[in-house]
Amino acid sequence: MQGETTILDGIPKIDVGILGYGFAARAHIAALKRIREVYWPPPALPQCICICGRNEDNVRDAAARYEVKRWYTDWHKMLEDEEIHIFDNCGTNDVHAETCIEAAGKGLHILCEKPMARNSEEAGRMLEAVKASGVKHMCGFNYRFVPAVRLAKELIDRGVIGDIYHFYGRYAVDRAMDPEIPLRWIYLKSRAGSGALGALGSHLIDLIRFLIGEPRSVMAMAKTFIRKRKKVDSDEWGEVDVDDAVSSLMEFENGAIGNFETSRFCSGRKNNQCFEINGSKGSIVFELEKMNRLQVYLKEEKIPHTTGFHDIIVTEKDHPLFKEWWPTGHTLGWDHTFIHEMKHFLDAIVNDKPVEPWGATLVDGYRNAVICDAMLLSAKTGKTVDIHY
Amino acid sequence: MQGETTILDGIPKIDVGILGYGFAARAHIAALKRIREVYWPPPALPQCICICGRNEDNVRDAAARYEVKRWYTDWHKMLEDEEIHIFDNCGTNDVHAETCIEAAGKGLHILCEKPMARNSEEAGRMLEAVKASGVKHMCGFNYRFVPAVRLAKELIDRGVIGDIYHFYGRYAVDRAMDPEIPLRWIYLKSRAGSGALGALGSHLIDLIRFLIGEPRSVMAMAKTFIRKRKKVDSDEWGEVDVDDAVSSLMEFENGAIGNFETSRFCSGRKNNQCFEINGSKGSIVFELEKMNRLQVYLKEEKIPHTTGFHDIIVTEKDHPLFKEWWPTGHTLGWDHTFIHEMKHFLDAIVNDKPVEPWGATLVDGYRNAVICDAMLLSAKTGKTVDIHY
Amino acid sequence: MQGETTILDGIPKIDVGILGYGFAARAHIAALKRIREVYWPPPALPQCICICGRNEDNVRDAAARYEVKRWYTDWHKMLEDEEIHIFDNCGTNDVHAETCIEAAGKGLHILCEKPMARNSEEAGRMLEAVKASGVKHMCGFNYRFVPAVRLAKELIDRGVIGDIYHFYGRYAVDRAMDPEIPLRWIYLKSRAGSGALGALGSHLIDLIRFLIGEPRSVMAMAKTFIRKRKKVDSDEWGEVDVDDAVSSLMEFENGAIGNFETSRFCSGRKNNQCFEINGSKGSIVFELEKMNRLQVYLKEEKIPHTTGFHDIIVTEKDHPLFKEWWPTGHTLGWDHTFIHEMKHFLDAIVNDKPVEPWGATLVDGYRNAVICDAMLLSAKTGKTVDIHY
Amino acid sequence: MQGETTILDGIPKIDVGILGYGFAARAHIAALKRIREVYWPPPALPQCICICGRNEDNVRDAAARYEVKRWYTDWHKMLEDEEIHIFDNCGTNDVHAETCIEAAGKGLHILCEKPMARNSEEAGRMLEAVKASGVKHMCGFNYRFVPAVRLAKELIDRGVIGDIYHFYGRYAVDRAMDPEIPLRWIYLKSRAGSGALGALGSHLIDLIRFLIGEPRSVMAMAKTFIRKRKKVDSDEWGEVDVDDAVSSLMEFENGAIGNFETSRFCSGRKNNQCFEINGSKGSIVFELEKMNRLQVYLKEEKIPHTTGFHDIIVTEKDHPLFKEWWPTGHTLGWDHTFIHEMKHFLDAIVNDKPVEPWGATLVDGYRNAVICDAMLLSAKTGKTVDIHY
Repeated sequence: MQGETTILDGIPKIDVGILGYGFAARAHIAALKRIREVYWPPPALPQCICICGRNEDNVRDAAARYEVKRWYTDWHKMLEDEEIHIFDNCGTNDVHAETCIEAAGKGLHILCEKPMARNSEEAGRMLEAVKASGVKHMCGFNYRFVPAVRLAKELIDRGVIGDIYHFYGRYAVDRAMDPEIPLRWIYLKSRAGSGALGALGSHLIDLIRFLIGEPRSVMAMAKTFIRKRKKVDSDEWGEVDVDDAVSSLMEFENGAIGNFETSRFCSGRKNNQCFEINGSKGSIVFELEKMNRLQVYLKEEKIPHTTGFHDIIVTEKDHPLFKEWWPTGHTLGWDHTFIHEMKHFLDAIVNDKPVEPWGATLVDGYRNAVICDAMLLSAKTGKTVDIHY
Repeated sequence: MQGETTILDGIPKIDVGILGYGFAARAHIAALKRIREVYWPPPALPQCICICGRNEDNVRDAAARYEVKRWYTDWHKMLEDEEIHIFDNCGTNDVHAETCIEAAGKGLHILCEKPMARNSEEAGRMLEAVKASGVKHMCGFNYRFVPAVRLAKELIDRGVIGDIYHFYGRYAVDRAMDPEIPLRWIYLKSRAGSGALGALGSHLIDLIRFLIGEPRSVMAMAKTFIRKRKKVDSDEWGEVDVDDAVSSLMEFENGAIGNFETSRFCSGRKNNQCFEINGSKGSIVFELEKMNRLQVYLKEEKIPHTTGFHDIIVTEKDHPLFKEWWPTGHTLGWDHTFIHEMKHFLDAIVNDKPVEPWGATLVDGYRNAVICDAMLLSAKTGKTVDIHY
Repeated sequence: MQGETTILDGIPKIDVGILGYGFAARAHIAALKRIREVYWPPPALPQCICICGRNEDNVRDAAARYEVKRWYTDWHKMLEDEEIHIFDNCGTNDVHAETCIEAAGKGLHILCEKPMARNSEEAGRMLEAVKASGVKHMCGFNYRFVPAVRLAKELIDRGVIGDIYHFYGRYAVDRAMDPEIPLRWIYLKSRAGSGALGALGSHLIDLIRFLIGEPRSVMAMAKTFIRKRKKVDSDEWGEVDVDDAVSSLMEFENGAIGNFETSRFCSGRKNNQCFEINGSKGSIVFELEKMNRLQVYLKEEKIPHTTGFHDIIVTEKDHPLFKEWWPTGHTLGWDHTFIHEMKHFLDAIVNDKPVEPWGATLVDGYRNAVICDAMLLSAKTGKTVDIHY
Repeated sequence: MQGETTILDGIPKIDVGILGYGFAARAHIAALKRIREVYWPPPALPQCICICGRNEDNVRDAAARYEVKRWYTDWHKMLEDEEIHIFDNCGTNDVHAETCIEAAGKGLHILCEKPMARNSEEAGRMLEAVKASGVKHMCGFNYRFVPAVRLAKELIDRGVIGDIYHFYGRYAVDRAMDPEIPLRWIYLKSRAGSGALGALGSHLIDLIRFLIGEPRSVMAMAKTFIRKRKKVDSDEWGEVDVDDAVSSLMEFENGAIGNFETSRFCSGRKNNQCFEINGSKGSIVFELEKMNRLQVYLKEEKIPHTTGFHDIIVTEKDHPLFKEWWPTGHTLGWDHTFIHEMKHFLDAIVNDKPVEPWGATLVDGYRNAVICDAMLLSAKTGKTVDIHY
């Protein structure tokens, strides 16, 4: 027997317009394409049909590379494209607010990369906009979609580690240590809002809220280790006015205390988002550089004398987010998290399900920004700052 | 500015026909689709345009899921499909030889999954066929395309670890330990050729030859721990006539000795292909379950008192096979190896480059089968068996 | 040939009187006995000749077990013992100040276990006393004498990791999590001074000062997770008025920032004193539970593509504090640190060398207490507290 | 209250004569001294009262250092010393047989370091001698006395890991890689019997027998990587006629298969005795360089989704061999194993208990030698060799 493959019936098509063509956009597009391969049948058949960027040559080239039908250099124009259902914002932090607000106004569902905005005021306006328009919205905290992180969440929710006493988390890299790196937009408050805090720390703050709950107050210190960098393609020096590192203590509503660090000045740390959670019945440890693993300690074991951290390879069919993947032990990579994330968002849109709690919404993005602002305020004043949303 | 994306000029199209729709085929198809995203411009624009499998419902469904234009239930028919340039064999071991020989005869380039054949006699005939037709050929030893493995190869070739004294390798899983697993084809010599040896061990034998060189002789033991399993969908018992585990010693032409293990009965080992190589100047350790890492020990260090295994996260722009990927520290998963492998094969075809040494050819697949046969013979006779190709 | 072993000439004898017979005292006595075996010839031939404790049966039994000539139940009496040269204080925190001050007044050299006192006021008086009498003094921060910690110090001093940006340290155990544990002296401010902070955290604060330098200011949070415990051998409940956990941020005089945690409520952490230091040229990681190892990352390597944390087994003849021990790879245990510490103190006494910087003095013990007090004050006020000695 | 410490009543005194003053003897003497500190009351009060070595200056110096009453340069003379109850043989392999046989003839209990003899013929004669005299005897396989190894044994005996399928073990060091190392006695068959096999591999073979049971047959390869070394204090070259490395496969009476490696040519491996055991219900992993840890995998867990290797820190009060030590998490070092071993032997002597199974006897030492001989024979003949005791 043989045959021609026919068009799929009954699966809705969802078209996406993406702002940006950097590595986040690339990961998003790759994920959209693979949804049908991983989830079959998929909730929807998504396609990135248009892409927007400032540089014409680059955006045209990206469109060809990623098989995107149309390209724009003006995001207003892209938002007028009548085919798109989702506006996926992978642009720099300074084009998050305006674009998302306009897109929400046009009734587009919003997926906005993190940090959602440069500060909580911007984030608040964005949140108002999506609430007003009633669209679905998601903030790009993709690490909620790491199977090991999801397993941590499930174990906590099932009470396996008991009442939580401690959270420690760090998101450390060594990317900014070279003084020769020019004064890119990420080093400017006007464009990025904050430094390591927004770029890296916001991910970790999201995981803290996802796993532990709401912080009541924070105390923080911030540092900028290299204060002068040469402007891009220039011999002139400019000032880095964002943090290279932020450390913070947190007190949680449930009585736990937390310890948070983020830095771009940790030699040898490449993408080191890690956390440890200590509870009354056990503990959990995760390290993004070994993202297919979760360490879990249980005070009580079936077999006496065997207490110790379990090194779980989170690649079993009954592990969260792994069922549709490969045979046991065949590990996932960083970009696979976006397949999980995108599928989740499509499912929420098509089947009118809530994005939360497994995905982060713009509510989460806003609260995240409030916490970041509080940390920077505490670092400035040397005092505890309470969190109010 | 805005525009429509046009067809790419000057990049050749390569069409592929795949036998099988299991997880290997799925990984191959996914890889073919992503080549242009990772390598830009790509050496070719590949497409899987037809797929073949025994079960009509399944193959039709797979074709829809993976966006494959045509499907067949008879592989002879697929090989007559005039559009295809590459025959990609992801079928069971017992349909490797006949199909590849026929495909080679039709002038199709051959990509054959491992183990290349049920034994060296079959493999030898396949090798004759591709030699006779002059097509490009590759055997699916995808672990040559793990960045950390490639880095190991480069370090060895650069003399960094000196003369090699020892190889230790193991490919261990725990997949076959449940006695309730029925007598699937993988447990039958008539269909699989061998057990853990062909399914897992052949990968490791390929890495041994890739990294260390040719073995001169082997001594081996083989075990079948569960000898009876119920036939599939039946109450009748049948006999497992392949190995559950093979252990072997090896002596190499360069004087090194090796120690090889493969088993499906190692509790807790999920996809545990690992190796250690000890040389006169240093050592290398790799573990597939942590595939983004390589451990390297160097006897001489720049800074005194710091000798110790380096835990290298193989995700730098100047690390092999990572240049086209993400920022440092963003890890790859198992399936990404196929993108590297497929791109390599396309490049060899389009630009008439050799597949070896970075890729394995059917020469490697044949020699691999000779070594497997020698191990099983030694296990039977209790004597050293020399390797002759 | 054969012979009788004669008395050693020319090696001074040093006699020690110890307060306490718990595990610290036991470790001290064992260490004193082994000095001659490890260091040959030793700087002195030490002997614990008397021991003092409140409970007559226990102290008599300890004297027999540890081959101590005399025992006392009244420490004033022991200090009158004319044979002793060193007063070694292994008593509870509330008998540190009074005893050490009296002993110093009698011209005895002082070795005082940590924390040196219940607070900085007490510690200050002790420091005054030893300064006034001119005796040698050491505070029992034995982790300075772990070979891997010493190696870390040497690497930092040699500039190997460059300017320091970050310190993270934690001393975590899970010893206090059981609510059935009674209200022992360690849970009472009147006797212990503080909780986890003094018992564990003071060790880490000492390592911070040893490795990084002086902190300029701190911000801290403190928690008591179990506030009520049953009094010892009673049905009555009493209040825990010390911390179960303290977390603190630190700013250092050299511009680095630090992150400090100590807790008795970290499930699965058994004696988990660990730290990470990030500098401009590299990083260092240490974990007490793997005390024979040091992880060191160096930005620049001799062999390209091999950057990664070195896992150094600190058991080479040219590693610090290991020369006198076993062949390479034969690891040390926790109690061996005291042999290094005691020998260092004897050497300082006999050869009139300074105890610092390799050993901690009562100056270090005092400053440590100042920092502990500052952390507790910050936790109470919610404000940054500057450090003034 | 105060008092003088009196002589202990009712605890027998056991006097020991030691042959040798190298690091093994040093570790034995240190252990004998510490028994009363660790085990209270101890089974006996042991003392090393005489020591014997070839070099008069060295042995006299050792006697002074280690507080040994008498020294000899002629072992016959020492064996005539009427005070000694135990002959502790820490001499080179070529003085094991003759001395032990003579000592046994004099009714001395025998503790003989490993390997027990240069070959099984010698070992057999030694075994005959101790059987004939009826003394207690122990072979110095101290790794049976590592708490983690003992825990492994207990878990296996309790059936926790089920039926055993696989053993893998390696004892690797890098001590012999420098070609400048002269032709010491360890490289000469006439003095050492074998190379890495006896010096290191015999330890591992003992653990195999302790943990898994008796091997039925072996297949082995042996290598000498550096065949010529300069004679000690000479310019003349001599031949290394022992192995630098031996690898072996084993089949066990219980159906398991084993894989064994020992080598002095593994760069970066310092004292790397490690093993993995895979059973039907779980697996166990041990590594001597992290001797306070045991990894245990259990197929069935109390909490679903948490299967993974447990990283057990074997320092709990209820862990084997740790009860008498420190608070949880305070790790032991290599030399502490001898305290356990010596106490065990004293207990066997004083209370007439069997040395086996927790300790190894000369029966174990003999069988060990038979297995070593079989491995070397297989390496020579290229054939399987059956084990017959």
